[in-house]
Amino acid sequence: MGTDSAPEAELEGAIQAARAGYAEVLLVGPQDRLSRELVQRKAQGLPIEIIHASKAVSMGDKATKVLRQRRDYSICVTASLVHEGKADGMISAGNTGAVMAFTKHELGALEGVDRPAIAQVFPTSKGTAAVLLDVGANVDCKPHHLVEFAVMGETYYRVIFGVERPRVGLLSIGQEEHKGNELTREALPLLKQLPLNYIGNVEGRDLYNGRVEVIVCDGFIGNVALKISEGLIEAVSSLLREAFTSTLSSKVGYMLARKALQGFKKRVDYSEYGGAPLLGVKGVCIICHGGSNPTAIKNAIRVAAEFSDGKVNEKIERDLAAASLGNPKGIESSGH
Amino acid sequence: MGTDSAPEAELEGAIQAARAGYAEVLLVGPQDRLSRELVQRKAQGLPIEIIHASKAVSMGDKATKVLRQRRDYSICVTASLVHEGKADGMISAGNTGAVMAFTKHELGALEGVDRPAIAQVFPTSKGTAAVLLDVGANVDCKPHHLVEFAVMGETYYRVIFGVERPRVGLLSIGQEEHKGNELTREALPLLKQLPLNYIGNVEGRDLYNGRVEVIVCDGFIGNVALKISEGLIEAVSSLLREAFTSTLSSKVGYMLARKALQGFKKRVDYSEYGGAPLLGVKGVCIICHGGSNPTAIKNAIRVAAEFSDGKVNEKIERDLAAASLGNPKGIESSGH
Repeated sequence: MGTDSAPEAELEGAIQAARAGYAEVLLVGPQDRLSRELVQRKAQGLPIEIIHASKAVSMGDKATKVLRQRRDYSICVTASLVHEGKADGMISAGNTGAVMAFTKHELGALEGVDRPAIAQVFPTSKGTAAVLLDVGANVDCKPHHLVEFAVMGETYYRVIFGVERPRVGLLSIGQEEHKGNELTREALPLLKQLPLNYIGNVEGRDLYNGRVEVIVCDGFIGNVALKISEGLIEAVSSLLREAFTSTLSSKVGYMLARKALQGFKKRVDYSEYGGAPLLGVKGVCIICHGGSNPTAIKNAIRVAAEFSDGKVNEKIERDLAAASLGNPKGIESSGH
Repeated sequence: MGTDSAPEAELEGAIQAARAGYAEVLLVGPQDRLSRELVQRKAQGLPIEIIHASKAVSMGDKATKVLRQRRDYSICVTASLVHEGKADGMISAGNTGAVMAFTKHELGALEGVDRPAIAQVFPTSKGTAAVLLDVGANVDCKPHHLVEFAVMGETYYRVIFGVERPRVGLLSIGQEEHKGNELTREALPLLKQLPLNYIGNVEGRDLYNGRVEVIVCDGFIGNVALKISEGLIEAVSSLLREAFTSTLSSKVGYMLARKALQGFKKRVDYSEYGGAPLLGVKGVCIICHGGSNPTAIKNAIRVAAEFSDGKVNEKIERDLAAASLGNPKGIESSGH
C-alpha cells in the first residue's frame, strides 16, 4: 500500500512478477479491494494470494499507535509474515522511516550486525552497477558501522550481481588517505584490515564512473547523495524536455532519436534495479521508492527472490564472523 | 598557471575579460612566456599586465617549501598583490587545497569569521542559481560555522545575483526539524535566530529545483555533493552522446536538435557562473575548476570585479556583526 499510486503499481508489479515466474506473491492490504482489482486484471490464475490488512501507515501516524495496533497495519503484517517464515522476503514502497523501524522491530538484526543499513544501487556510465550504503538508516555513524556496511554491501553485491571480488571504497573528499573527516580517517585503517577488495577512498564522482562497486558512507551523507542524484536527474530531464520541445527542428530531432534516447533513459533508470535492500535484518526486506512504477515493483520482487535464494543473510553472518566482527565493540577498541 | 591547459585558458579568458571591459587584468606567471603568448594573440593593446612568478605549485610541493620560497610561486605572488592592495581580487584554477591554504595565510580572515568557506553556484531547473557552501574548505564543522556560512552566503547571493531576500536553507535529510544529524540539529536553532529569510531544512534535491537560493552544510558533505553532481553530469553526457551516435536516425535527430541541446548544455554548465568564491578572507578570491575553459576564466574575472565593486566583504562584516556574531565562541556557548 506504499507507492504514490497504491495499490495500482503494487498490483501491476506483482502480476508481472508472478507471470515472469519470479516468485509466488502475497499481497498485503485490504482484502476486498485487492480481490476486486485482481479479478478486473484477470489475474486469478496467477500465484498471488491476498493477506488482509485494513490499514496503511500514513505520515501522521505515531509509531506507538502503529505498534499497538500492529495486526491492522500492512507493513507490520508483512514483516510478521517474514518473521514467521510464511514469506521468504518482503517489499514495501511506504515511508522509508516507517518501513525501516517496523521491519527492524519485527525481524531483529543478524548475528554481528549492530546497525542495519539501506543499500541503493546506482547505474554507472560503464553499464555496471554501484551500490552505496548507508543511504539513510543511520546518521552519525561510528567507524565500526562503516566496517559492517562494507561487509554487508560486498556480500550483497557478490551474490546479486555475480561479481567475485567487487571493489569496495570509502566515500571521501579525495583519494589520498589523509583526506576526509574524523569518521572516514578513523574507519580507514579498520577497512584496510578486512579480507575484501578494498581500494581506499573514493569520491562522489566515482558513484557513476564504474571505478568501484561498493561504496560505504554515513547514512546522512548517503541520503544527501541519493537525493542530489534524484534531483539532478529530474532537473536534467526537465531541461532536456524543454530543449526538445523548444523548436520545430528539435521536435523532429527528438522523434528521430527517440528510440536511442529510450535506451539512454533505461540506462539511468533506477527502477531497473528494483528497490534498495535493508541489509542486516533477519529476513529479506526491499524498500522501494514511493514513486515506484510497476516495473520497479516487479524488479524488487525479483531481487527479493534472488536475495533469498542466494542466501545473502547467511553469507553476511559468515563474512562478518570471518572478518572477526562478531563483537563490534572489540573492533572499535582494537582500532583506536 | 592553474588550469589543466595552463596558461592557455588563463590567457584566453583574461583577454576576453579585458576586451569585455570587466577589469584590468594582472597575469601572474613566467614573464617571458606570457609576454610571448600575449603578442601571438595580438593582445598588446589591452589592459593586461604581467607580474612575474617563476614557479607554479604542483601536487608534490610541500607547503613549508612553498611558504619559504613564496616570492617565486604564482599563487603566493597573486595573493600578496591582493593583500598589498595592488589588485582588487584574485582568480586561480590551481589545486584548491593550495589556493585556499596560501590565500588564507596571506590575506587572513574577515572580522567575525572563524572559518572561510568555498561557495559553489549550481544552476537550477527554474533558470535561477543556488549557492551551496561550504564545498570543501572545512570538514568537521561546528554549529556556529554553519551560521557564518549562512550569513556569508546570503550576503554574497544578495550582491552578486541582485536578489533582496534570498531564501537560506540547511542541507539535511528531510524537511522536518527533527530530521538530520547531530550537527544540523544543533545548528537549526542558531540559524532560526538570524535576521535572514531562513526556510529550515532542505534536501539534496532542492539544490536543483529552485526552492532555495543559499544552502549551508559541512564542507565534507558539500564536497561530496559537488563531486556527485559533476560525476552524474559527466555520466549523463557520455550516455547521451552514446545514444545520439548509436543509430543513423539518432545522428540525424541530434543534428536537428543540436541548437536546442546547446541551449540545454549552457543551462547546466557551471562555467557560466565563473568560479567559486572563497568567502570570509580579507580580499576577493575566486577559485576555478582545474578543467576551466576560457569562458569560465572570463566569467570568474567578471564575478571578482562584481564582488569587489559590490563591497561584499564590507557587507559580510556588517551582517555578521548585525547577527551578533562578532564572537563565534559566544554564539556556541549560548547555543548549547
